[in-house]
Amino acid sequence: MERGNGMRAVDLILKKKNGGVMSKPEIEWLVDGFVKGKVPDYQMAAWMMAVCFQGMNPQETGALTDVMMRSGGMVDLSALPGVKVDKHSTGGVGDTTTLIVAPLVAACGGTVAKMSGRGLGHTGGTLDKLESVPGVNVEIPMERFFEIVKEIGLCVMGQTEGLVPADKRMYALRDVTGTVSSIPLIASSVMSKKLAAGADAIVLDVKMGTGAFMQTLPEAQALARTMVEIGAHMGRRTVALVTDMNQPLGMAVGNGLEVREAIELLAGKIPSGDPLYEVSMLLASHMLLLSGLAKNEAETRAKLTQALTSGAGLQKLGAMLRALGGDVRCIEDPDSLCIVEKKIPVALGAAGYIAAMRAEEIGVAAQLLGAGRATKEDHIDPAVGLVMHKRQGMHVAADEPVATLYVNDPAHVEEAAALVRAAFTLSQEPPASMPMVYDVIS
Amino acid sequence: MERGNGMRAVDLILKKKNGGVMSKPEIEWLVDGFVKGKVPDYQMAAWMMAVCFQGMNPQETGALTDVMMRSGGMVDLSALPGVKVDKHSTGGVGDTTTLIVAPLVAACGGTVAKMSGRGLGHTGGTLDKLESVPGVNVEIPMERFFEIVKEIGLCVMGQTEGLVPADKRMYALRDVTGTVSSIPLIASSVMSKKLAAGADAIVLDVKMGTGAFMQTLPEAQALARTMVEIGAHMGRRTVALVTDMNQPLGMAVGNGLEVREAIELLAGKIPSGDPLYEVSMLLASHMLLLSGLAKNEAETRAKLTQALTSGAGLQKLGAMLRALGGDVRCIEDPDSLCIVEKKIPVALGAAGYIAAMRAEEIGVAAQLLGAGRATKEDHIDPAVGLVMHKRQGMHVAADEPVATLYVNDPAHVEEAAALVRAAFTLSQEPPASMPMVYDVIS
Repeated sequence: MERGNGMRAVDLILKKKNGGVMSKPEIEWLVDGFVKGKVPDYQMAAWMMAVCFQGMNPQETGALTDVMMRSGGMVDLSALPGVKVDKHSTGGVGDTTTLIVAPLVAACGGTVAKMSGRGLGHTGGTLDKLESVPGVNVEIPMERFFEIVKEIGLCVMGQTEGLVPADKRMYALRDVTGTVSSIPLIASSVMSKKLAAGADAIVLDVKMGTGAFMQTLPEAQALARTMVEIGAHMGRRTVALVTDMNQPLGMAVGNGLEVREAIELLAGKIPSGDPLYEVSMLLASHMLLLSGLAKNEAETRAKLTQALTSGAGLQKLGAMLRALGGDVRCIEDPDSLCIVEKKIPVALGAAGYIAAMRAEEIGVAAQLLGAGRATKEDHIDPAVGLVMHKRQGMHVAADEPVATLYVNDPAHVEEAAALVRAAFTLSQEPPASMPMVYDVIS
Repeated sequence: MERGNGMRAVDLILKKKNGGVMSKPEIEWLVDGFVKGKVPDYQMAAWMMAVCFQGMNPQETGALTDVMMRSGGMVDLSALPGVKVDKHSTGGVGDTTTLIVAPLVAACGGTVAKMSGRGLGHTGGTLDKLESVPGVNVEIPMERFFEIVKEIGLCVMGQTEGLVPADKRMYALRDVTGTVSSIPLIASSVMSKKLAAGADAIVLDVKMGTGAFMQTLPEAQALARTMVEIGAHMGRRTVALVTDMNQPLGMAVGNGLEVREAIELLAGKIPSGDPLYEVSMLLASHMLLLSGLAKNEAETRAKLTQALTSGAGLQKLGAMLRALGGDVRCIEDPDSLCIVEKKIPVALGAAGYIAAMRAEEIGVAAQLLGAGRATKEDHIDPAVGLVMHKRQGMHVAADEPVATLYVNDPAHVEEAAALVRAAFTLSQEPPASMPMVYDVIS
């Protein structure tokens, strides 16, 4: 038990439990005490559970974010030219937008100096995807990160050790105490990291649907609004999209498979109208707007289309991979990233329209095949995963494959195939089409 | 983190957080794991906070009580003759009923083999009160406890070490995580101890008001009902009274002072109509009814009045004190229990009717004078405390003392006097009288 400055952790827990509003000094005392080991885990866990039920108002959420952000070192990007713009997704399946939008924005003159994370559970992580390219090392020194950004306009690296220790400790505790799904706790976790990473402008992609933390539109909008408010309060230009995660965003789920899809998109091989294409373009568009590199969406669209068709975006991705030590033959030959022992088609054994293809089950299926981790220690196979052949709303024949599993280790194939099949719901009438983007909040 | 039998603590926390109903095996797994140190404090704290918000249904509360009761040794009172009847108060100020009702019930032929606790905070404990009598030792071996009960029909001892370890650990955690005030957690804590202590019948005194855990009648009734249901479910005859704790029950607050008041009441010096008298008679009456020693309240009243007027009750108290090694001169000379250096009258400096005299402030005032503990390690002075001269509804003159402080250490006298004054609210019109007993639930 910690007591100091006349404060007692139990009183702060009771205040929140009873629906009270905490002052910034109270939040600071609690979080600092927790990071320093003076407020024990059990008191922090009780307080976070109370927050799950009672929520926090914008002032409290802002104060929590600020305290978490300052709990460790902070990155100063001011030595880099122009407006530094970051992008963050709340976690989805088949969401490889970072590897598409960062090169496109850099190709249009933007500066993207971005720290990314690893995947856990059924959602992927950009670092794991980058490492599926042979030779890539994302654990680079900060000086090298700055050099790369100065030279080519973009770099993605692993989050440095000392950044936002409060979030590391709080997230580890939330994960085992059932306190993950709380809007103020999610918002402060995301924004404290984004703010500490130093960007001037932030575009957020809040996922909504069966494969996301936020399963309803009002929840996703509330999270988006909360994060935009925090960003604005901290003097960073912030925009949040609310996008669909009822089905995987891209067709590929798996690290090398998703890099291949990003390369194909940047090579112009994926048409407009495709969800990964459209969401990427919208994210990149807002990044350019916040960077001051375009006046309106028509202008950003023109620039981005030019970056795609000219191959300038793909060149930027190649340049970054090379700078990180990667073998860039994959740019020409993306199939080299997903060479596996077996490719196994999965059919549903029934015909109909695809009313639903739930992202979470599909993400877990890829994880079972070795594409993701159940625990932080698990090993990832960069080549495995699965590729979807259908999207929500399409018709499928009984024996027509809806997906192909990319397999090296046969151990969990049956289980993964069953999960893929279970992800689908068929209907006899064409279902209503689902939007790809639900809202833009700024 | 504990995982076993296919269960994970985090899933059980989430189940309760989301309003689910836990099965008995789930509750057993969680509580056993916690007692064995396999489920860590932070997961138990998060689960208990979720219980505070989501509650538990009767089956869950019963299962929790059962699991807690069986977490350690249990007392077998079957070697003792007759129906063994216990009594428990949820904790009040100036509540010395145990020292009155146990002797009265024994004098009427009942058997009271009771384990008691110590005081903490603003509420007193029977063990501390007994120890204010010179020579009394409440930490006696179980064999001696049985001998005393067989010989004189009653004994009060300290709770044995191995009894209900789950409650000891859970209560310690609740105390520092803001999870004390939850009806299912309070009910299971009280009833697991009462059930493990072996009585056949239990009379509960649920305190309601500013000086109690339960501050409203519906809350107090819900707690009473929950405990009676648990008792019935476990095959013990159980009755609960809901009684007033807006003002102290007796006039005396402090260990020796309260024993003196109990002796005076048993000596017939406190008239009927007095709250301590009335609540004691009602508790004792229900204890006799549950013991099968009387058919109705008229019969119990007659027996109890006889035990009072004959001095048989007072004799039983003396016999128990002697059996516990006590110097029984206090039975003849109760003033010997409260010899202090200074007696300081406290007046309000204003005239009016007493609309309120809040029990909690008065309890804390006595504690400050040395009658109670702020922490388990604090030393108690058996002679100090305070005696009230007025009750709610009475008129008081500006210079008329409303209480007298019994003081040995002058350190906190001013603070205690200020607290006593702050406990009073005066009105110019006579206030509505408050009931002493709100409900009887069986």
